[in-house]
Amino acid sequence: MKKTDVIVIGGSAAGLTAAITAKRHYPNKSVLCIRQEKKVSIPCGIPYAFGVVGTPEKNLIPADESLAKSGVDSLVGRVVGIDRDAKTVTTDDGARHGYERLIVATGSNPIVPPLPGHDMANIFAIRKDVDYLAGVIAALDQAKGLCIVGCGFIGVEIAEECKRLRPNLKVNIVEMLTHCLQLVYDEDFCLKAEETLRKEGIDLQLDAKVAAFEGDGKVERVRLADGNAIEADIVIVGIGAAANAELAREAGLEIDNRGSIRVNRYMQTSDPEVFACGDCADKISFFDGKPSGLKLASIATMEARIAGANLFSISRANRGVIGVYSTVLGDSAFAVAGLTLKQARDKGYNVVVGEAESSNRHPGCMPGGTPLRVRLVFEAGSQVIIGGQVIGAKSGGELINAISACIHQRMTADDIATFQTGTHPALTASPIAYQLVNAAELAIAECQKLRRKHR
Amino acid sequence: MKKTDVIVIGGSAAGLTAAITAKRHYPNKSVLCIRQEKKVSIPCGIPYAFGVVGTPEKNLIPADESLAKSGVDSLVGRVVGIDRDAKTVTTDDGARHGYERLIVATGSNPIVPPLPGHDMANIFAIRKDVDYLAGVIAALDQAKGLCIVGCGFIGVEIAEECKRLRPNLKVNIVEMLTHCLQLVYDEDFCLKAEETLRKEGIDLQLDAKVAAFEGDGKVERVRLADGNAIEADIVIVGIGAAANAELAREAGLEIDNRGSIRVNRYMQTSDPEVFACGDCADKISFFDGKPSGLKLASIATMEARIAGANLFSISRANRGVIGVYSTVLGDSAFAVAGLTLKQARDKGYNVVVGEAESSNRHPGCMPGGTPLRVRLVFEAGSQVIIGGQVIGAKSGGELINAISACIHQRMTADDIATFQTGTHPALTASPIAYQLVNAAELAIAECQKLRRKHR
Repeated sequence: MKKTDVIVIGGSAAGLTAAITAKRHYPNKSVLCIRQEKKVSIPCGIPYAFGVVGTPEKNLIPADESLAKSGVDSLVGRVVGIDRDAKTVTTDDGARHGYERLIVATGSNPIVPPLPGHDMANIFAIRKDVDYLAGVIAALDQAKGLCIVGCGFIGVEIAEECKRLRPNLKVNIVEMLTHCLQLVYDEDFCLKAEETLRKEGIDLQLDAKVAAFEGDGKVERVRLADGNAIEADIVIVGIGAAANAELAREAGLEIDNRGSIRVNRYMQTSDPEVFACGDCADKISFFDGKPSGLKLASIATMEARIAGANLFSISRANRGVIGVYSTVLGDSAFAVAGLTLKQARDKGYNVVVGEAESSNRHPGCMPGGTPLRVRLVFEAGSQVIIGGQVIGAKSGGELINAISACIHQRMTADDIATFQTGTHPALTASPIAYQLVNAAELAIAECQKLRRKHR
Repeated sequence: MKKTDVIVIGGSAAGLTAAITAKRHYPNKSVLCIRQEKKVSIPCGIPYAFGVVGTPEKNLIPADESLAKSGVDSLVGRVVGIDRDAKTVTTDDGARHGYERLIVATGSNPIVPPLPGHDMANIFAIRKDVDYLAGVIAALDQAKGLCIVGCGFIGVEIAEECKRLRPNLKVNIVEMLTHCLQLVYDEDFCLKAEETLRKEGIDLQLDAKVAAFEGDGKVERVRLADGNAIEADIVIVGIGAAANAELAREAGLEIDNRGSIRVNRYMQTSDPEVFACGDCADKISFFDGKPSGLKLASIATMEARIAGANLFSISRANRGVIGVYSTVLGDSAFAVAGLTLKQARDKGYNVVVGEAESSNRHPGCMPGGTPLRVRLVFEAGSQVIIGGQVIGAKSGGELINAISACIHQRMTADDIATFQTGTHPALTASPIAYQLVNAAELAIAECQKLRRKHR
């Protein structure tokens, strides 16, 4: 039996990052990353493999190169058991591998609801497996009607990409909630997303529940709870993912009531020599410390950087998930960090909002000039920022990270209003109109108005 | 004599922002903004008026609209005197205007060195005056050879824009220092900028000093100190600006030894009822509190937001200038926040550097994929970030603002390495490769190496 100082189980965003981080922080320790799939899909890139990228073979994380460059050993194989007393893991070829510290990054599995007909041919979930995805694309290329179940990020991105490359394909999305992306953006942003999708010829069935998948061995239609049916010879289900915590459960590690591996702020499981990170690990909110169901590659890598650094000496703590997302619909970036206005109110915050729009160039007639709108949400008493949303120009994809930094640091509206930004005619709004700063100023003005009213 | 609660002198970035901020924070106070020019140029947009924007008439701040929308009164006129005892200002038409609080935002004037021949025809500085700039463009359109003195931002941007629209124009830049943009970027970034400019057919004379301008009434050539001459029938001088503090000096306000109006952290001058902000006000460094010569529109607006908010009740303090700049040369964004490696060493910091490059898309074959490199500079002991530089994709123009937020908040490398970023295939690097986070991780690894060495 070979012994390695550190073993990481999992080779997607969390596993790779944890292994590389471990080696960066403990260069004298040996690190082995065991992953199931030879070829590792870029998780967020999968919708684009259906469209502009063209094939899942072009949507790969260069796992072997990255690990080798970092001095991490790698092994393709499936771990079938963890023996915490012996400090070993066993792979499906029967080999045992000893460890000093273990990181479990086994990810998640897409949820497919056990509705009647759910196991018919041509009903797919989004798995990270390259061959499986190639199969989905082959089926798509034969299809006349696609029905996507779930109008979250995966749903809307796949819908757009499929339609872009296959203009004759009829594309429907069925969503239980009232709006597309409703769990992520405020209503007006959702409406804008819906308008964009409809303009591209994508049909949205909102407030609609799937009752059954119908067909003769192969799906032919999706039956809704209201009795209506959508003709579809292919179905893609994108309604979320559940932690893959079986291995950890069998090893006797504590599992929370959502089925995720319980971890503390240092990413240690109930066994302090075993860490977990990514979609398989439980999460709490940055804002109130309550359980959070968010699963994002960027959260996974953050947690992996904590787990990897803490293996032999605790130096980092997880402050909880903020939730920073972005996407592009039509030509517009849609991005969010932290709480939306609605989420903040639902959590019981007394909120004020500031909102500013300007071109991403100055003057606006500079080439590439596109409107970019920023909405900031503050807790009214402290004026601490708790959320931000961005819509418009693609530079919003990085602007949301400036907003994320502000949220992390619990900056106040005054801090943000007087924060020094770099601006340039060909890159950003003008310093007078800079959206982030003006949204903060307008929130302060709003606070003052409220105070005068209550006096 | 009419009395206004607040008078702001100046109608460029600082003046307009100060007036709008004053009204936002004190909606019941009357605010009057007095400016010299009817049409207000966007200061950073001026180089583009020589190129893609086409005319200075398209490079205007909508001053009247912005002020009116904010409820600020405005007056075009030149202030000729301030009487602090009577609390009045006098305009050139002889009218007196009373105030409760005054904000001086008189800006700066471009420096033209008093070299032999400096007052010949066709030697221009970059003034914000629209008619003057139209005159420069008219002269450019007749010219065969342009010599730009000074290889700072104005110099390089004007050179590129002039060359882009006038491919037959011979363009030279003369710079006293060894590198273009040397005061702003580390050497390798400067070299990259020089390579870009040369590829575009712009000649650079570095380590070269101007001795005289020669010609017969109108400039014909620029004589260098080494005796060589550059043929040029038009010269543009872009070597910096000096505070325009005459009015303040005459009013008996304290002036520092660089000729700027002395202000405290609240932007009050030596008279607490008179505030100053923007290029006319003195500045200190965020890092060591020492005097700083930086003059930027984004600093001016930051100061204006402090001055405007503090007029009747102090609520904001200036933490000193960080210096956040960006530009585009060729197709690449060049941006910097805080101290370069060289500046940090010159200030006596013990530094470590982390650097990471990746595509701004993932996978890199997504449309628009362009490399983006991030360099972060940390103080070695505390691992607090003190600077960042970005080169490559244009989203770097907003990424630098995320870095600026990190510097403002004195985040450590650990804070940055575990900070939650939003990533998306069509907008940013992957969460594994995200440059900001990886640069921080690599700086930590560097620190650990140093520590092991010194043990």
